[in-house]
Formats: sequence, structure tokens, C-alpha cells
Amino acid sequence: MKNILIFGAGRSSRYLIDYLTENARKNKWKLRVADLQLNGQSSSVEVEYSVLNVRDEFARDDEVRHADLVISILPARFHKLVAQSCVKYSKNLLTASYETAELKAYEPEVSEKGLFFLNECGLDPGLDHMSAMKIIDQIKADGNELLSFESFTGGLVAPESDDNPWNYKFSWNPRNVVLAGQGGPARFIQNGKIKYIPYNRLFRRTELIDLGKFGRFEGYANRDSLNYIEKYSLQGIPTIFRGTLRRPGFGKAWNVFVQLGATDDSYFLEGIENMTYREFINSYLPYHPTDSVELKLFHYLNIPQDSEIVHKLKWLGIFEDQAISLKKATPAQVLEHLLKQKWQLQAADKDMIVMWHKLEYRNPTTEKRYRKTSSLVVSGQNREMTAMAKTVGLPLAVAAKLMLTDQLSLKGMYIPTSKEIYEPVLEELENYGIRFYETEEVEKESTVCY
Amino acid sequence: MKNILIFGAGRSSRYLIDYLTENARKNKWKLRVADLQLNGQSSSVEVEYSVLNVRDEFARDDEVRHADLVISILPARFHKLVAQSCVKYSKNLLTASYETAELKAYEPEVSEKGLFFLNECGLDPGLDHMSAMKIIDQIKADGNELLSFESFTGGLVAPESDDNPWNYKFSWNPRNVVLAGQGGPARFIQNGKIKYIPYNRLFRRTELIDLGKFGRFEGYANRDSLNYIEKYSLQGIPTIFRGTLRRPGFGKAWNVFVQLGATDDSYFLEGIENMTYREFINSYLPYHPTDSVELKLFHYLNIPQDSEIVHKLKWLGIFEDQAISLKKATPAQVLEHLLKQKWQLQAADKDMIVMWHKLEYRNPTTEKRYRKTSSLVVSGQNREMTAMAKTVGLPLAVAAKLMLTDQLSLKGMYIPTSKEIYEPVLEELENYGIRFYETEEVEKESTVCY
Repeated sequence: MKNILIFGAGRSSRYLIDYLTENARKNKWKLRVADLQLNGQSSSVEVEYSVLNVRDEFARDDEVRHADLVISILPARFHKLVAQSCVKYSKNLLTASYETAELKAYEPEVSEKGLFFLNECGLDPGLDHMSAMKIIDQIKADGNELLSFESFTGGLVAPESDDNPWNYKFSWNPRNVVLAGQGGPARFIQNGKIKYIPYNRLFRRTELIDLGKFGRFEGYANRDSLNYIEKYSLQGIPTIFRGTLRRPGFGKAWNVFVQLGATDDSYFLEGIENMTYREFINSYLPYHPTDSVELKLFHYLNIPQDSEIVHKLKWLGIFEDQAISLKKATPAQVLEHLLKQKWQLQAADKDMIVMWHKLEYRNPTTEKRYRKTSSLVVSGQNREMTAMAKTVGLPLAVAAKLMLTDQLSLKGMYIPTSKEIYEPVLEELENYGIRFYETEEVEKESTVCY
Repeated sequence: MKNILIFGAGRSSRYLIDYLTENARKNKWKLRVADLQLNGQSSSVEVEYSVLNVRDEFARDDEVRHADLVISILPARFHKLVAQSCVKYSKNLLTASYETAELKAYEPEVSEKGLFFLNECGLDPGLDHMSAMKIIDQIKADGNELLSFESFTGGLVAPESDDNPWNYKFSWNPRNVVLAGQGGPARFIQNGKIKYIPYNRLFRRTELIDLGKFGRFEGYANRDSLNYIEKYSLQGIPTIFRGTLRRPGFGKAWNVFVQLGATDDSYFLEGIENMTYREFINSYLPYHPTDSVELKLFHYLNIPQDSEIVHKLKWLGIFEDQAISLKKATPAQVLEHLLKQKWQLQAADKDMIVMWHKLEYRNPTTEKRYRKTSSLVVSGQNREMTAMAKTVGLPLAVAAKLMLTDQLSLKGMYIPTSKEIYEPVLEELENYGIRFYETEEVEKESTVCY
């Protein structure tokens, strides 16, 4: 009998729990799911739910002590606490979050005690590592020279549920979407040169990506691509770029809020309690005795009145004299409040995950250049069973199964960039509809410019 | 015999020391000037120079203990230490720096001990308070209703020394010029509405100001104008705006650096030690296999090739393949390094201080509206005897004289917004060529828009 302890009973644990439950009976597993609040989940033979405050060290330790494997899908800031208990009681740990310096600090103890900690084993980070490393390792193994690595991921809305002019709905933390790109310039390397894109240009330097039957997308630079040189052993690669996907036109319209200053999260707005959305927007526009807020905005940012941007902005209701109804809020919080209403997934809505890698490499013998792509598209079933929850939860679940069935016997602190991890995980995920399609072609000179 | 202790022997103390020396003999004053480093100043009958590290509490206390009045023109971060010693030995203190929360914390002790601390008694802050309050108090005393207060200050180069296309040279801390406008949006009130201008729009929302024989200027919003509502008792005023002055066209060209992200001070550039200015600029531009850095920049930011902006940028040398020669630097530090060479005052160059207030008010009986302006223009003599040093140092010097000759007998912590302070200080300053010219006219509706 093996005990699996899962911290976090939220939406993103659904697929994880279902998969492990499905495998529990034949493997003699017992699942225990602990969270601060439960949403009516009831315990079964295989799964026991438990109310627990992860900050409560005594209770947390007690849970961890009885577990054979611990999985945390709590918000990332809590992983440190979970890791602490895991080290204390020599338990293996799985998360889908970034291996931060805080977590990395446990590495000596993890190695010393012969534990296995696997972080970044979800979607992004997670599936991006696995699918990219599969190709990178293959290209290198064949003796080829990598010239370029580009990788894009987006959490979007599936075409059949796409009924708004932004072609976007939230399938993940809305706050992160509003603040995306803040906190330092995006960095990447293009033809051997480091490039920086500051926040105020980020949503205008997009690349168009055509994924055939799945349609067209645009990608904007995602934070610091240089981090991935070490992660993926790409030292010396002339081009490396990671981006976030949206439908074409999203960036141009979102840029309006960036330019206005309406995504700022660093100060509270004065008089917010009596403010309407129209007044909120007007507080970023020059005074004019007669021009409307709309006119002023279009003039201020050089937006033609028949532009798609106008349609998108009007649809959001930012020009309405409707009360915001917040007592205290930063500009970013006002936007988040509005967008949560407008970009909400409806009960029957399906979300969609899109991931796309493009790699260029050279065969040093023939001097021929090749382009390889790998793409993943996953659609959700509804607001509860999202593609996001599936692609975050299932990699974790599969890694857990591999560990508990002794098919994964690494020791130390890892992210899933090792063949021993990504190969069996990707293989099993194909059975659940998470399957990457790869293409390859001979190419001429790259002509992509950011 | 009275002892005046001055912390700070740098460039900005020159006028202060000269004025007090001039008054020393007949008033039986003795000046003591303490700083970490002296630049060859030699002591005289009236002035004694002393090497002192203000962080050395024992030495600092010992100096303060023997003084009758203390003046600090050290960098603002040291005022806290000086204030500490002044409170300890019950000495009055004068500074030209902002009354920060750190300094404000001494207020209870200052009041209890019957001391007089006067901060913000330089140029800006300082002369701006005094000249503005003189008009505000008068307008209110006459029973009029204030409708609008706008105030602009600039430290510039005098026309006779203005020989570069930016029409600008440094007469003050270059770092502050490079970072101007960062750290939160500019805030002001226009016709009863709070307006916010984010950094990325700041240098494009300028107002043109014509000061007749002194020429034309442009003003951009300076930080948080709302702070001045309480400072100047302007509660309920429909329009309040404070700005910084440059020559027309400066903002548009400076905005290029803002848009590129080249004024960012939050991260260090990779590979700076081998970088040229051209490469620095190129790291903010999209890759292109054949286009020049110049072409890419002009295209990226929509700058016509015959624009004045192009001339300004080329003059700075940012397109030159010249080594930056820094070992470690943020983008802002690279810019500062370049600008220090290009915008340096030459030995014979004269700087220029311009201050301009515009107030609108209504006579409630006649319902007539008036516009009142007050302007100050001061030119320096050369790189040593700058208008900046004069307008910062002389208000301090005059306040010191008034205190030591018992013409100023307030107790507590002040900034020079009180009539008891600004009236005698402004009067004496006129004898030294620091004279505000006021105009008044009946006006129609205000039509200024930001």
C-alpha cells in the first residue's frame, strides 16, 4: 500500500487526481488530498480529502510523514513549506512550478538523502521542456548543429467557444495575464546578438505563426529566453526565443492599456470607489472641453476609428459609465476586475492549449539546413475539465505513476529535461491525447525578424 | 561671536559660503565648512575648512556641539545624520532638500526643544514655494477664488552657451536627468479630474511655453503635483500641475531612449565590456540581415529621416562604433556615461535657471477671471559659478542670515511656504539678481490641454 499526498484540491488538480485514482486500485495506492478549502469533494475508497492549512507546520509534517510521495499543486509560494517537510521526512516531491532559488536551496539535502524532487513538470514549465528536449537531443545525437530554437505556448479559447473579438478567455490566473511582461525587459538572442524588448514595445513586436487547420496566432516575447540556454544545454546557439501565443490582433489592442498606463500595479487609484470605467480610462487622457473619451483615446494613440482595436475596446465596455465597484484598486486590478467578467469561460466553453517549437539546424557534412517543428493542440471539455488543467495535471500524474512503479529511479533535484524523464512521460501522455506532431523540411535562409 | 557650521563644500556651496563670508565680519560670524574631501579650498579669517566624514558620529557631534546654526548641503541621504546631531545638541538646521518622512520624524523633538528646522529652502524645492506662495497668499487675501495653479522649473544652458542640438547641458546631477520620470506615473489635476501620465507617454505630453525674450520652452509633468495641494493649502483647486522645462523638441528626442528601453536602470547589460554605442542601440532593435541600425531605429519608432530627432541622435554619437568602456552598467548608466561627455558645461559656459508660475483666479463679486504669471530667469557666470549653485545656495544663505540676526524667529519644522519666511528671503534675494517678474491680465476661458 502506497500513500500519495497531494497538496491542493483546486481546479488544476482534477486530471491529476482522476488519473491517479484510475491507477490506484490495481497499484494499491491510497490518495490523500489536502487543501485549505474543499469544494464539496467527497472522499471515496481511493481518495481521502482533508482540510489543512499548509502553513500549519505540525499538521503539514504529520501528513507528509505518512506519505510515500508528495505532489504540490498549491500556489508556487507554498512549495517551499512543502519541500521543507519532505526533506525532513525524506519524501520525494513533485511540482509543476518553477525551480526557484528557494527550492534549489534544498538540493544538497535532497542529494544527500537520496531523494528525488521533480519541479517544472506541468505544461509551461513542463511539457515545453519535454517536447523541446526530445527534439534537441535527437538533433544533437545525429551530429547536427543547432542554429535556432524558438518556442511558443498559449492558453487560449477553443474555436468553437471563441465568441468575442479578442479571441481570448481566461483559463488560468487572470492577474498574471494583466501583468504579463512587467518586471524587466524580455531578452532573447537573434543571430548571435542579445536583444531586449521593454514592456512598452512588447505587444507590438509579435511574430505571426500559422498552424494550418488550427489557424493563425501571434507570439510575443516571454521574459528571459537566455535562461533556457543552460536549461537545454544550448550554449552558443545563435538564436533563441520563447514567446506567448495569442490570436492575431490581441497584442495591438492590449497595447492600448499598456500605453495608457492602465496595467500598472504599483499604485492605488484616487477616488476609485466612485469611479466608472469611462472615468478610469479618462484619467489617462488629456483634458479636452468637448471631445469624448473615445475620440480622445483614438486620437491620443493614433487609432483609426474603423480599426479592429476600436471594436475590441468597445466590446470590453471600457467606455461605459458603469461603476467599477471596487473600494481600493490599482489600475491593473481594475482591468482584472473588468476582464474577469468579460473573458470568463462559460460553463460549456472549451479552452485550448497550443504549443509550438521551431528549430533550425545544419548537417555539418552536407551543409544542408533543416527546419523542424513540433506542435501540440489540446482542447478542454468544459469550464471544469480544461485543457489547462489536463496539460498541467497529467504530466505530474504520469511522473508520479512512473516513480511509484519504479520506472523512474533518479536521485536529486530535476526538471524534466532528462531523457529518462521526458521519454516515458511523453509516451504515456499520448494515450491521453497529449501528442506532439513533428514536421521536418530542408530550408533556405531564415528570414524571421522580431 | 556666532559659529555657522556648513556640511558640504561642493560646487553648490560656493554662493552660500560667499554670501555668509561677506556678512561675517560685520556680524561677528565664524564659518566652518566640513566635507569628506576639500578641493584646495584654504581657510581664511572668516572661513575654516575641515575634513570630516559625516558618518563619523563622534566627529559630527563634536562639530555640531560648537555651532550656533547648522546648514547641510550634503547629498540628501545624509541629512538624517545631521538632523540627529542637531536635535541632540539643540541646534537649528537648514537644508535645501525635501522634507522627507525621515526628517519629519524629528518634528516632535524639534518642537519640544523649541528649535527651528527649515528644509526645502533652495531652488526647487525652495524658490518655487516662496514665489508661488507669495502670489497664492495675495490672491486669497484679496478674496479671490483660485482656479488653476501651474508651475514649471528648468535647469538649462544659457542661450549664449547653447551650442548643441538638444539645447541642453548638465548643471546638476546627470543621473537624475537620465532617470527623470521613472518610479510611478506623473499625477496632476485638470479641471477637477485627476490625470495620470505613465513614463512611456511623459515626454510626448508637453506644453509649449513662450517666455518672450527668453524664448520658447516645453514643460513635461513633474511627478506628483497632488502633493502640493496640502503644501500650498490649495484644497479643492480645479487644476494643479507642476512641470519641468526643456527647450522645445527635447522631449520628442528623449522619448526615443524611453521607447527603446535605454533609460532602464533595473538590470545590467550582458557583454557591456565589449560593446560600442552602436551595438547598445542595436540591442533594442529587431534583427535585420541588411538594414543599418539607423534605418531600423527610424523605422521602428516612425521617425522621418529629415527630422530634428535624427540630427539630435546623430550628434550624440549613439550610432558610432565607439567602445562604451564600462565594465558593468545598466542601460541608464550607459546613457549617463555618454551624455556626461556630450552635455558637459565647458569652463566658460553659462547655465540658466528658468521658473514660471501661471495662476488663474476668479473675483467672486465681478465674476471676472484673471491670469497671473511669475517668472524668474537667472544666468550663471561660468561652470563654477552656476545659476544652479546660486539659486540653491543663496536662499539658504539668506535664511541663515535672517535667523542669526533674529529676523526670523519661528519654532518648529518648516518649509518656506510661510509669509514670515518667504517675504524677507525674496526681498533680500532681489539684491542678488534673483527677482521674479509678475504679470496679470483679465482672461477668457482657459484652453490649455495636456
